Amino acid sequence: MRLLIIGGSDAGISAGLAARDHDPTAEVTLLVADQYPNYSICGIPYHISGDVPSWRQLAHRSSTDLERAGLTLLLGHRATTIDPGAHIVTATQPDGTTATFAYDRLIIGTGAVPAAPPINGLDRLSAADGVHVLHSMDDMFAVLASLQHRDATTAVIVGAGYIGLEMTEALTIRGLAVTVLEQLDQVMPTVDPELAQPLAEHLHQHGVTVQHGAKVRSIARDGARLTVDTDHGSHTGDIVLVVTGVRPETTLAATARAELGIRGAIAVDRAMRTSLPDVYAAGDCVHTYHRLLRDHVYLPLGSTAHKQGRVAGINAAGGTATFAGSLGTQAVKVFDLVVAGTGLRDAAARRAGYDPVTVETTADDHKAYYPGATPVRIRITGDRASERLLGAQLLGSRGAEIAKRVDTYATAISYGACVEDIAELDLSYTPPLGSPWDAVQLATTGWSQAISR
Amino acid sequence: MRLLIIGGSDAGISAGLAARDHDPTAEVTLLVADQYPNYSICGIPYHISGDVPSWRQLAHRSSTDLERAGLTLLLGHRATTIDPGAHIVTATQPDGTTATFAYDRLIIGTGAVPAAPPINGLDRLSAADGVHVLHSMDDMFAVLASLQHRDATTAVIVGAGYIGLEMTEALTIRGLAVTVLEQLDQVMPTVDPELAQPLAEHLHQHGVTVQHGAKVRSIARDGARLTVDTDHGSHTGDIVLVVTGVRPETTLAATARAELGIRGAIAVDRAMRTSLPDVYAAGDCVHTYHRLLRDHVYLPLGSTAHKQGRVAGINAAGGTATFAGSLGTQAVKVFDLVVAGTGLRDAAARRAGYDPVTVETTADDHKAYYPGATPVRIRITGDRASERLLGAQLLGSRGAEIAKRVDTYATAISYGACVEDIAELDLSYTPPLGSPWDAVQLATTGWSQAISR
Repeated sequence: MRLLIIGGSDAGISAGLAARDHDPTAEVTLLVADQYPNYSICGIPYHISGDVPSWRQLAHRSSTDLERAGLTLLLGHRATTIDPGAHIVTATQPDGTTATFAYDRLIIGTGAVPAAPPINGLDRLSAADGVHVLHSMDDMFAVLASLQHRDATTAVIVGAGYIGLEMTEALTIRGLAVTVLEQLDQVMPTVDPELAQPLAEHLHQHGVTVQHGAKVRSIARDGARLTVDTDHGSHTGDIVLVVTGVRPETTLAATARAELGIRGAIAVDRAMRTSLPDVYAAGDCVHTYHRLLRDHVYLPLGSTAHKQGRVAGINAAGGTATFAGSLGTQAVKVFDLVVAGTGLRDAAARRAGYDPVTVETTADDHKAYYPGATPVRIRITGDRASERLLGAQLLGSRGAEIAKRVDTYATAISYGACVEDIAELDLSYTPPLGSPWDAVQLATTGWSQAISR
Repeated sequence: MRLLIIGGSDAGISAGLAARDHDPTAEVTLLVADQYPNYSICGIPYHISGDVPSWRQLAHRSSTDLERAGLTLLLGHRATTIDPGAHIVTATQPDGTTATFAYDRLIIGTGAVPAAPPINGLDRLSAADGVHVLHSMDDMFAVLASLQHRDATTAVIVGAGYIGLEMTEALTIRGLAVTVLEQLDQVMPTVDPELAQPLAEHLHQHGVTVQHGAKVRSIARDGARLTVDTDHGSHTGDIVLVVTGVRPETTLAATARAELGIRGAIAVDRAMRTSLPDVYAAGDCVHTYHRLLRDHVYLPLGSTAHKQGRVAGINAAGGTATFAGSLGTQAVKVFDLVVAGTGLRDAAARRAGYDPVTVETTADDHKAYYPGATPVRIRITGDRASERLLGAQLLGSRGAEIAKRVDTYATAISYGACVEDIAELDLSYTPPLGSPWDAVQLATTGWSQAISR
């Protein structure tokens, strides 16, 4: 069985490994457009910050390990067309020539590309001008080159989502004065304003200039100096990062007439099958089944890409696997704070037909008498009628086990928990690390008390 | 409605608060034998270590708060008899006189008392000799007094369960040279030897003398010097702690002819009703329903006492609540390590009719490239035939979010998860705090791979 995989990032590699795991005789070939198979794109901010000294450390696995696992990696091979009838993919090779690859099964893992927001001047500026996007290893190298060549001491970051905030931290650690701009009325638009506000304060405390509710109109270069104009004033910097989200890279799939779904992502079923025969897809290029919505959304996340890739790989190799679905669970560390969330917030829940109520509770991460206790703010979203747990958002300090506390909610939601079920869970307790009723449980009890009033 | 509660610790106070919450008109009176209502017994080691400077900080809530919540606390009142027919409790008051208390509903929360192991000489030695048990605030004061009066520099701790190990840490922090003795072949007998062994090494590294597989034969005093003889040699110390477990305190209930269950604990149903009319019981004095075993066990834990107390309180006040059950979830910090567990291990699972397989996996707590990654050892126990997740044990460093990682397993087990379900959970990921497949998931995948070989 010849399995061809387009893409060497999270989805593609996970697919290849899972396929070989399921069928050790499968011939698995990956067309990798760049030179960086199986790199942790999520780790880019930590190399830029200096936390990860060598970029080579960002590899999830070495090429040697991948080859030992039975994957044939063709680096610098950019797929240009898929002929789904003939089961052939054409690709440009590193020397510029074209090659064709016949397959029995194909997996598309082309990922996403940075969205280009409607900002005047952006189309005329590039990394050479110190204006960057950041979604690949090459993007990272370009940022590092700019920082060095331009002797950068100031940066403007457009977009205060999780990558924007991770890069804000990274560049601040490097010693730059950073301004972060967000069009919406808050940083980190994936959590409620109540939690975004202390996050913005924390950024301030670390010397970051934060401006939200500011739409960027234009970016212009005057010599070495870059000016970002918003509808609420101008900001200058030695470099500018535009990190306002991504869109699925579907050119190949669309040209081959694969059906597209939400936000133009490749439509797949829960076996990760596309509409084309023997063609699967996974990762940031596909739409994602949401466990609570029971519908597809566009939710590009590395953890999801790994899971979808695994399902695609098993199925392509003749096995049977089903993608269980995402809850959009996320965590991000910003300096000394961690913010995390899972499931639905009010607006999305309401659109899905729920009658959501969100209640916030603050509880200590562990018994207050034991040194180092810090408050954890938890916002619970539940459905008023069914009292089903729909979502949770948490904010706390770095040592407060926020990222794993959100996992308890994610697990419970996966099993259709009601809010009050959480208080009945037998969670661990020891005074240095928790409470007899964990913060996770005090928050759900707070929700139940609030709605019964 | 007159609700009388015997006991002012976790179960009793939780019951009282829940009763008032359910019925704000309930007259709730608590007979508290000592002077310390609502103290965190689990916090005792941290006052002895000096981490908690004042013992008053160990109160979960102040007496004022409890009274404001509508609880009438009668301190120094020791209940002596229950007349279940007449609905009357007799108690000794602080001045030595006797008083009677009529009730409509009664909740027994008499807790547990230290088990007295069969050690020669133990019955003739007491706190005045520097030989201590440790289960109450008064026990704690006695230990502190001994440490001071005896100018103690050495201690022998009999019992290497979680209290023994917490006290080992506490006394080491205070500067004592500590020897910990355990009759079984390992420290921390609630986890498998594979995890106990590195825990014992860690104790060694902190200067602790650990001897397991050593049955204590006798304790003797010679002047100020205490000698503990085992079947593998003798140890001397300025003080000796005997912390070999507890037994339910059921004298009152038994005298009133309440039915007793497992290990002599008060038999209750899942509404926390005893066999006596209008009498409930909760906490360390009762047997505990186990979610996986679907049967009762004796499993005295503070977190369970809170939950059972709440159920008893709601039901006693006329509401309807059911104790969901325990999984024996536990976590303990020992110096810089945390060990945690939930559910069943092989032996208990086999006794319950399962065909358990336990597989250990080691995975980093977060992406290895980000500074500070540490290994987490996870032992997954699953049923071979049904592949149901039965239990998990974890060992890792203090910052590795071990205590909350065990909660993901506890939550999943509560919903009857299969081992392979865990890999499908949408858990959070950010490189400083996790991996795209979290350690929790790598461990269950490791289990699945091992049994499919």
